[in-house]
Amino acid sequence: MQAKIGIIMGSDSDLPVMKEAAEILDHFKIEYELTVVSAHRTPKRLNDYAQTAAAKGLKVIIAGAGGAAHLPGMVAAVSNLPVIGVPIKTSKLSGLDSLYSIVQMPPGVPVATVAINGAQNAALLAVQILALNNQDLEQKQQEYRQEMEAKVLKTAAKLEE
Amino acid sequence: MQAKIGIIMGSDSDLPVMKEAAEILDHFKIEYELTVVSAHRTPKRLNDYAQTAAAKGLKVIIAGAGGAAHLPGMVAAVSNLPVIGVPIKTSKLSGLDSLYSIVQMPPGVPVATVAINGAQNAALLAVQILALNNQDLEQKQQEYRQEMEAKVLKTAAKLEE
Amino acid sequence: MQAKIGIIMGSDSDLPVMKEAAEILDHFKIEYELTVVSAHRTPKRLNDYAQTAAAKGLKVIIAGAGGAAHLPGMVAAVSNLPVIGVPIKTSKLSGLDSLYSIVQMPPGVPVATVAINGAQNAALLAVQILALNNQDLEQKQQEYRQEMEAKVLKTAAKLEE
Amino acid sequence: MQAKIGIIMGSDSDLPVMKEAAEILDHFKIEYELTVVSAHRTPKRLNDYAQTAAAKGLKVIIAGAGGAAHLPGMVAAVSNLPVIGVPIKTSKLSGLDSLYSIVQMPPGVPVATVAINGAQNAALLAVQILALNNQDLEQKQQEYRQEMEAKVLKTAAKLEE
Amino acid sequence: MQAKIGIIMGSDSDLPVMKEAAEILDHFKIEYELTVVSAHRTPKRLNDYAQTAAAKGLKVIIAGAGGAAHLPGMVAAVSNLPVIGVPIKTSKLSGLDSLYSIVQMPPGVPVATVAINGAQNAALLAVQILALNNQDLEQKQQEYRQEMEAKVLKTAAKLEE
Amino acid sequence: MQAKIGIIMGSDSDLPVMKEAAEILDHFKIEYELTVVSAHRTPKRLNDYAQTAAAKGLKVIIAGAGGAAHLPGMVAAVSNLPVIGVPIKTSKLSGLDSLYSIVQMPPGVPVATVAINGAQNAALLAVQILALNNQDLEQKQQEYRQEMEAKVLKTAAKLEE
Amino acid sequence: MQAKIGIIMGSDSDLPVMKEAAEILDHFKIEYELTVVSAHRTPKRLNDYAQTAAAKGLKVIIAGAGGAAHLPGMVAAVSNLPVIGVPIKTSKLSGLDSLYSIVQMPPGVPVATVAINGAQNAALLAVQILALNNQDLEQKQQEYRQEMEAKVLKTAAKLEE
Amino acid sequence: MQAKIGIIMGSDSDLPVMKEAAEILDHFKIEYELTVVSAHRTPKRLNDYAQTAAAKGLKVIIAGAGGAAHLPGMVAAVSNLPVIGVPIKTSKLSGLDSLYSIVQMPPGVPVATVAINGAQNAALLAVQILALNNQDLEQKQQEYRQEMEAKVLKTAAKLEE
Repeated sequence: MQAKIGIIMGSDSDLPVMKEAAEILDHFKIEYELTVVSAHRTPKRLNDYAQTAAAKGLKVIIAGAGGAAHLPGMVAAVSNLPVIGVPIKTSKLSGLDSLYSIVQMPPGVPVATVAINGAQNAALLAVQILALNNQDLEQKQQEYRQEMEAKVLKTAAKLEE
Repeated sequence: MQAKIGIIMGSDSDLPVMKEAAEILDHFKIEYELTVVSAHRTPKRLNDYAQTAAAKGLKVIIAGAGGAAHLPGMVAAVSNLPVIGVPIKTSKLSGLDSLYSIVQMPPGVPVATVAINGAQNAALLAVQILALNNQDLEQKQQEYRQEMEAKVLKTAAKLEE
Repeated sequence: MQAKIGIIMGSDSDLPVMKEAAEILDHFKIEYELTVVSAHRTPKRLNDYAQTAAAKGLKVIIAGAGGAAHLPGMVAAVSNLPVIGVPIKTSKLSGLDSLYSIVQMPPGVPVATVAINGAQNAALLAVQILALNNQDLEQKQQEYRQEMEAKVLKTAAKLEE
Repeated sequence: MQAKIGIIMGSDSDLPVMKEAAEILDHFKIEYELTVVSAHRTPKRLNDYAQTAAAKGLKVIIAGAGGAAHLPGMVAAVSNLPVIGVPIKTSKLSGLDSLYSIVQMPPGVPVATVAINGAQNAALLAVQILALNNQDLEQKQQEYRQEMEAKVLKTAAKLEE
Repeated sequence: MQAKIGIIMGSDSDLPVMKEAAEILDHFKIEYELTVVSAHRTPKRLNDYAQTAAAKGLKVIIAGAGGAAHLPGMVAAVSNLPVIGVPIKTSKLSGLDSLYSIVQMPPGVPVATVAINGAQNAALLAVQILALNNQDLEQKQQEYRQEMEAKVLKTAAKLEE
Repeated sequence: MQAKIGIIMGSDSDLPVMKEAAEILDHFKIEYELTVVSAHRTPKRLNDYAQTAAAKGLKVIIAGAGGAAHLPGMVAAVSNLPVIGVPIKTSKLSGLDSLYSIVQMPPGVPVATVAINGAQNAALLAVQILALNNQDLEQKQQEYRQEMEAKVLKTAAKLEE
Repeated sequence: MQAKIGIIMGSDSDLPVMKEAAEILDHFKIEYELTVVSAHRTPKRLNDYAQTAAAKGLKVIIAGAGGAAHLPGMVAAVSNLPVIGVPIKTSKLSGLDSLYSIVQMPPGVPVATVAINGAQNAALLAVQILALNNQDLEQKQQEYRQEMEAKVLKTAAKLEE
Repeated sequence: MQAKIGIIMGSDSDLPVMKEAAEILDHFKIEYELTVVSAHRTPKRLNDYAQTAAAKGLKVIIAGAGGAAHLPGMVAAVSNLPVIGVPIKTSKLSGLDSLYSIVQMPPGVPVATVAINGAQNAALLAVQILALNNQDLEQKQQEYRQEMEAKVLKTAAKLEE
């Protein structure tokens, strides 16, 4: 089946963070593709990826990057699909550089930014977007939230004992 | 016609920023509702708003807030709709407080954060989401981008003269 | 006996920090309850907790949270009791995000914020508040301070030897 | 009648901010005294003020200061009363210096910190503390909140027209 | 005569800053071209500009941008010429966002970053680079420095009177 | 012999940093005393220390503190001696809190601030001050600098081999 | 009479701040010289100034600089006199850049740093240093502090009326 | 053969970072010299180094420094060669201090700043500058980029399997 979500990252060193997005999509049984696209080392690949994304059936692109972190913004400049940016924590500026580079986009080209290392939420946001036209997914999503709630309640109950 | 996008803000002092979101939606002829919901002064209203949003037909909620800026995150906690957060610039910490409060959501409850005062991009992101299932809108969106591009090219041409 | 202080936290990962508040209250023999309330994963529980807090006899609520850290502010929005917020240190922004989210509350709804990871001081502040109408507690509090002072003087004496 | 709340500030240049605390206390008809105490220029006065505060009937001290901002912390070091610190916005570091100096107190000596320039909330926090043993005040406080809520609802209604 | 330096900027609102680079090049009688290239609104133009820069005779590219500020880094990703980045001061984060986005490039693709709004120094750096193979320019450059020095000495003399 | 320099710190956890000041003074054979004075836990001791410092022969006070870090500023408020402040690195805000609290003193009461954890330089600054009236010390100081220089030259020579 | 204090600054745009240091020294009738020395535009002058400072009778050098702000540190590297650094507020980074550049000196070469724009305190620190060997000055200094205290007490009295 | 690039650093503790610059130059077979020059401990050596750099054949100077980090700026003040500054990560302020000190140079004296610890890019920038007049080097540089690109594509292919 054709992937609906593209998960891309600037370097495979971002994989430990970004695979959490994949795990969420696995949980919701949403097809995705996952690969490395470097804005700075493979600018042509970035262009190709962004230009063909919609045509090949992608609905949302999740892009993680650290430091100068141009990947999400440049994909959003080329493609009209919703782009979700994941600022990767860096060893020098803790991901503040990644966050500012990704979130401070100029008027006209949005990137939906999540928390530093927030790949899980990037995937959940993609699920929310797909669920707008997929009742099944909307249902699963509600269950996911109920499970989260239940887990907190259980932890609370244990603490209160 | 029923509104598809809810634009809310923590205080009417946020209106000069947030009405830019409304103007974008006007341009794309997308129905929206716009109002004030204060997370801290009207917590019950916040709950009601978030709980009924999907049922009354909203697809996306755009929430602007400044300072502690709990509005977007709390709406996202109650509603399953995609929530787009707009950090409002503050006179004390320039909106850094708003940005951190909105973007640093914990795993499980995403807020799609845009730039400080980036209400325009919040609306464009909502358009992108709606356009996933609306070819007409997708078409208008491409035209919008082409106009943006044309305007830059015109400015460039003038500068190069 | 009925608890006078409620200690809540956004996640049980905050427990190592927040139990220091409990230890202080143990020292002063003040009844407290301690549990997990997640603003984002259990918003209904948050509402219930805050709405019933005063009626069940709580005098002060100590709320610890990290990242977007909406818990203290939202409890303060619903309950009229004094709320003391403890910004939890985070691995990405060192707790700056937690601090700004908790302390930068808008006019009308205060949160008494202590230092990052300052759960001990949150409890001591609660003791000070209760001691305003409890001479016994006021007495113990003075002794606590004298012991602190004595400990510093002893350390100083040893260093000066 | 004897003042219950002491409002102090490091310099009379802080008065435009700190008088907002006085206005809140006026609204709630709570007696207060308001004066200047400089931690650095009048350290003896600071000591005297803090040492006699409880004996002369004060229940809570609200202390505003900017920059190095030692006033709240040093009053809290000398007096056992709850001390509420108001970080004053500065022209150089926007009040970040004031905020860090006031909130980052070491274990043992808490300062209840509110937002930068948050004098209004400092007073409301003091009201909450006094209301714990004053049903009349508790009642007034609820009315205050209802008025706040009503004002937001009215603004919202006007915006929605 | 063919331009040796390309001065580009993300928006014509950057012109007041970037024209200072042009003035320096005018002073040194170095041919340059100046135009607008938006990384986000005209990504194709960016690619074209960067790909043809060397072939048409440019030796150095000076790129100014604010906010997410991807222009310098993306030009550097496509072209092999030295790229000098000028972080433009922004109204929200004072140019910290621009600075981090421009300077924190990953290994492999450098951007020579100057101070926030430092367009003048960007041009002087370009002059230094060209002067490595142009004795005439090297000579002029030394005179420029001597004039700077002389101006300071004159100011100093006046102050010392 | 009577101590000329007082080295004080807010807590004995600051000792590993502050003893580097002592080692420098040992090297220069300058008498010093070293102890703990807590601004917040022993405010009376702080007052006594600062008030008697000049009378007992101290010429300079070196004060290290972390977090809210009121010690150097409060000693400077009480004593007229030059006070050198050492901001101690903290586990939460890396010492930024300590730095701002110590350096941002209001007009009238200076604290000579050195780098975060810069106890060594605090001592060297004290040596420079004493050397103004002590030719012997001035001489030793020049030798110290020459040794520093020699060490760098030696390292350089080794690297260049 | 020979100047005892050298007041230097990186540019005459720093004069409005730095002349406050001169006014303090005028008040204390201490001879000083005031001039411009640019670390970057007149490095030779910097060297000359620092190398001859002690020989011509200067006891303390007060150096103000903004941005990269190398002046105080480089003077301290060349001269053995105590150097007091004044970080000048900048329009871009508010003086944070100046502060970090001046205060974060490496072990071996101290700069006594005061608050951003704290030229007044720089002068008072110089007075404290000179007063160590000048009873007359020590006396005047105490009077200065008493006047400061008196002024605060007067303001306080007026506010308390 | 005579060195074309000078790699200098403030302390040999910067060597682990700065040797990455050397490795890049080795790869491109560009002659370089590498040594320690401390702006603060060996100011005379700094002057000598900068003054003789051009005459002895250097074309570009790469200077790494941490903390107050005056080395790159002072070398740029004395020499007319292009100076590339590498802000070294520090244990206290993560290299923010180094970055601000190096990049925020005043008009007239540029330093081409790269990322925190970005020594590799400093060398690549030097290569780009030399390649402007060296076709061979230009060729090698393109191959280097193609290899980088190829490596990313290979990683991507593996991930996509």
